[in-house]
Amino acid sequence: MHPHLRHLITLQNLNAATLVHLLDRAEALRVASAHGTRKLDLLHGRTVLNLFFEASTRTRTSFELAARRLDADVVNFDIANSSTNKGETLLDTLHTLEAMHLDALIVRHREGGTPDFMVRHAASGVSVINAGDGHHAHPTQGLLDALTVRQHRRNFDALTVTICGDVLHSRVARSDVHAFSTLGVRELRLCGPRALLPGAEEFPGCVLGDDFDAMVAGSDVVIMLRLQKERMIATLLPDEDAYFARYGLTSARLKRAAPGALVLHPGPINRGIEIASEVADGVQSRILEQVANGVFVRMAVLAELLAR
Amino acid sequence: MHPHLRHLITLQNLNAATLVHLLDRAEALRVASAHGTRKLDLLHGRTVLNLFFEASTRTRTSFELAARRLDADVVNFDIANSSTNKGETLLDTLHTLEAMHLDALIVRHREGGTPDFMVRHAASGVSVINAGDGHHAHPTQGLLDALTVRQHRRNFDALTVTICGDVLHSRVARSDVHAFSTLGVRELRLCGPRALLPGAEEFPGCVLGDDFDAMVAGSDVVIMLRLQKERMIATLLPDEDAYFARYGLTSARLKRAAPGALVLHPGPINRGIEIASEVADGVQSRILEQVANGVFVRMAVLAELLAR
Amino acid sequence: MHPHLRHLITLQNLNAATLVHLLDRAEALRVASAHGTRKLDLLHGRTVLNLFFEASTRTRTSFELAARRLDADVVNFDIANSSTNKGETLLDTLHTLEAMHLDALIVRHREGGTPDFMVRHAASGVSVINAGDGHHAHPTQGLLDALTVRQHRRNFDALTVTICGDVLHSRVARSDVHAFSTLGVRELRLCGPRALLPGAEEFPGCVLGDDFDAMVAGSDVVIMLRLQKERMIATLLPDEDAYFARYGLTSARLKRAAPGALVLHPGPINRGIEIASEVADGVQSRILEQVANGVFVRMAVLAELLAR
Repeated sequence: MHPHLRHLITLQNLNAATLVHLLDRAEALRVASAHGTRKLDLLHGRTVLNLFFEASTRTRTSFELAARRLDADVVNFDIANSSTNKGETLLDTLHTLEAMHLDALIVRHREGGTPDFMVRHAASGVSVINAGDGHHAHPTQGLLDALTVRQHRRNFDALTVTICGDVLHSRVARSDVHAFSTLGVRELRLCGPRALLPGAEEFPGCVLGDDFDAMVAGSDVVIMLRLQKERMIATLLPDEDAYFARYGLTSARLKRAAPGALVLHPGPINRGIEIASEVADGVQSRILEQVANGVFVRMAVLAELLAR
Repeated sequence: MHPHLRHLITLQNLNAATLVHLLDRAEALRVASAHGTRKLDLLHGRTVLNLFFEASTRTRTSFELAARRLDADVVNFDIANSSTNKGETLLDTLHTLEAMHLDALIVRHREGGTPDFMVRHAASGVSVINAGDGHHAHPTQGLLDALTVRQHRRNFDALTVTICGDVLHSRVARSDVHAFSTLGVRELRLCGPRALLPGAEEFPGCVLGDDFDAMVAGSDVVIMLRLQKERMIATLLPDEDAYFARYGLTSARLKRAAPGALVLHPGPINRGIEIASEVADGVQSRILEQVANGVFVRMAVLAELLAR
Repeated sequence: MHPHLRHLITLQNLNAATLVHLLDRAEALRVASAHGTRKLDLLHGRTVLNLFFEASTRTRTSFELAARRLDADVVNFDIANSSTNKGETLLDTLHTLEAMHLDALIVRHREGGTPDFMVRHAASGVSVINAGDGHHAHPTQGLLDALTVRQHRRNFDALTVTICGDVLHSRVARSDVHAFSTLGVRELRLCGPRALLPGAEEFPGCVLGDDFDAMVAGSDVVIMLRLQKERMIATLLPDEDAYFARYGLTSARLKRAAPGALVLHPGPINRGIEIASEVADGVQSRILEQVANGVFVRMAVLAELLAR
């Protein structure tokens, strides 16, 4: 177990025991919820602030629900209207919020490194939780993906996990790689158009390739990434149809994976672009379980970081 | 009493016993509040989400207050920033929110039928409450109007109720018609410029007409609808003054109604367009009582639908 | 002590005993918080509504935190989406909100006098708290500035307080003048470019001047105002550099003040325009303490006004 977990910026430096501890805690919360215990008072009197410099209603709502179900007070800091737009620096915003005695800042920012920058400059005991920063990391997504897989597969070391899409620009892919490699999966494959694949040196131990038909074969878990349409223009692929033809997860392609392979997607999905509706809504899809697990994982993280 | 009320989409299919039960419950909440009991814990641990695809601060605030006064957690899902704008389908939004274990979705949408569509596709035990959908229905408005009338008049079967304005496009008018006809008013009159009147076949049993002076005569309740100014252009009436001259509720016109007739309006009012200030602020106006009753009716609906 | 404090619109008509009482209460809340008591239940069941016609995330968040830490329910009324934009009058908005049984309205408006107007027309027992109206007043800012000074200086009557910037358009300056003059400071100086100084008749007993080097000399407290850049164009000063050269608070200039003089700023600061970074971040800066005190002052005000 990690000795002192006060912030959650990336999964990269967390050991397997810490990850397993967080997953266990999230799972226990899920079980309690299924038995009717939705609300706990673990964080009564604590204040959590959503600091989203980049809009994301889904993730913000998931964090807000998690915090409220632990009885924390939650404040949404509306950046669009804030003085950060009047030229206040990020550091001034940080120190101002710290002065208000917040217990946790949940930060999303389009620039990678922003949450880490805040940790390095935080003067008080505030906890910083990264809710996605640039291409860098999205640690609660990595955790919820690992939890979702663990609910269906006993041993990570028996699994081949394939991540497909715009891996180069994906914080989800990075946090998934950190989670699944630390948890010891057998093989981790990263697939996408060559222009959207990172350098192999960034992902030692992973198999990289641009042939999805080949990469999906035998996979136990297939994680599809959301395609940012505006980025596709810069790649070799001319349009959505061409992308879907080569990288979309169809029923036919899914048949090449291991029997009963799990299908994950961080959402929101682009139907007919990176995933076929028949697969997204099919029996192998775990997409809605991911959403449910997201709340439990965030409850576990908040409880862990803010426990006195 | 309706055997199993899990959603509230329209009042059309609710019987009188159910309506009376909801009104009784709202009235009891009002009395408790007047005696100082503002906050109950009936919905402790339950989560209510405001899903407003169409802006309405008043109605959203009324629902938010109602839910909080029952100790529910309330989350406002900001559609303008949501992935629904990134092309996510309504169904994906619904299923994503369901996966977060919400107890109620309060939905407003400019397209009639949207809340009903969500009910038909909801997979879990979530309750859907219609907060206004297109021209179709606004059931809590119908209930609060009925409650407001009942607080002043003992017997519905002695009442003539006249609704005046753009009836054709009004979800308020439709829910009022459903409420008052089920509760057995003696006569229900729908009045407005001919171009803004619906076909008689939609409202069997109602009296339709475009002569407000004639229609208001002898009315016990006069419900003025808000004029959507942008719609007037499409009608025969050239401008606001012409509308007010024929359909505005003035003191002179109100004198034609029954003595002490009740004046209602769903708000926000357009002074000098559909209603004269002297009437809106006069002793017969029940407009602010409607606002107050709105919170109690929504508390009653939430308590009824979400009670275990 | 003021016999019946139900609203807080300005500090101008409050006597010293009332100010001291509010400061004492805020200080007690600060001490309790430092000892771990962050959340009280004084306002359980009460509802506070943020009615910000002018965006201000910092002040709104400070009030929201204050209200929640007293266990009140807080609703943010989003004016940008409200019917006030559809032509509803301010009075109709007020009466509608009153009908919803709110206990306090926290109002910010760009027109001075708006909160007072609401007080004069409020029909019910709602409390109105001014969160800043035009150039008129920002009473909780005046209180938090006084509290911050009092935490460092025992006797107000030994203090020279200098306020520098666009005094003419500053509600902060006005509320500071009211607070510090009532609390009996020895000397109050108002400094700024001549075009941004009010008439002497508005501030009897204050020293006005445009020479910051002379005015800062011997000051025990230096309060820098935020420069509204768009206003500078209308003045004699050509640009930010010229402003900073004459009115910016630099280390050199601060040395002219009394030893250990306190530096205050309402935030957000414009670094290098009205204040040098070395001063804003220096040991004499009390800026972040002001932010912290802001929450405690607002808790004290809410508790005082809403106590049964």
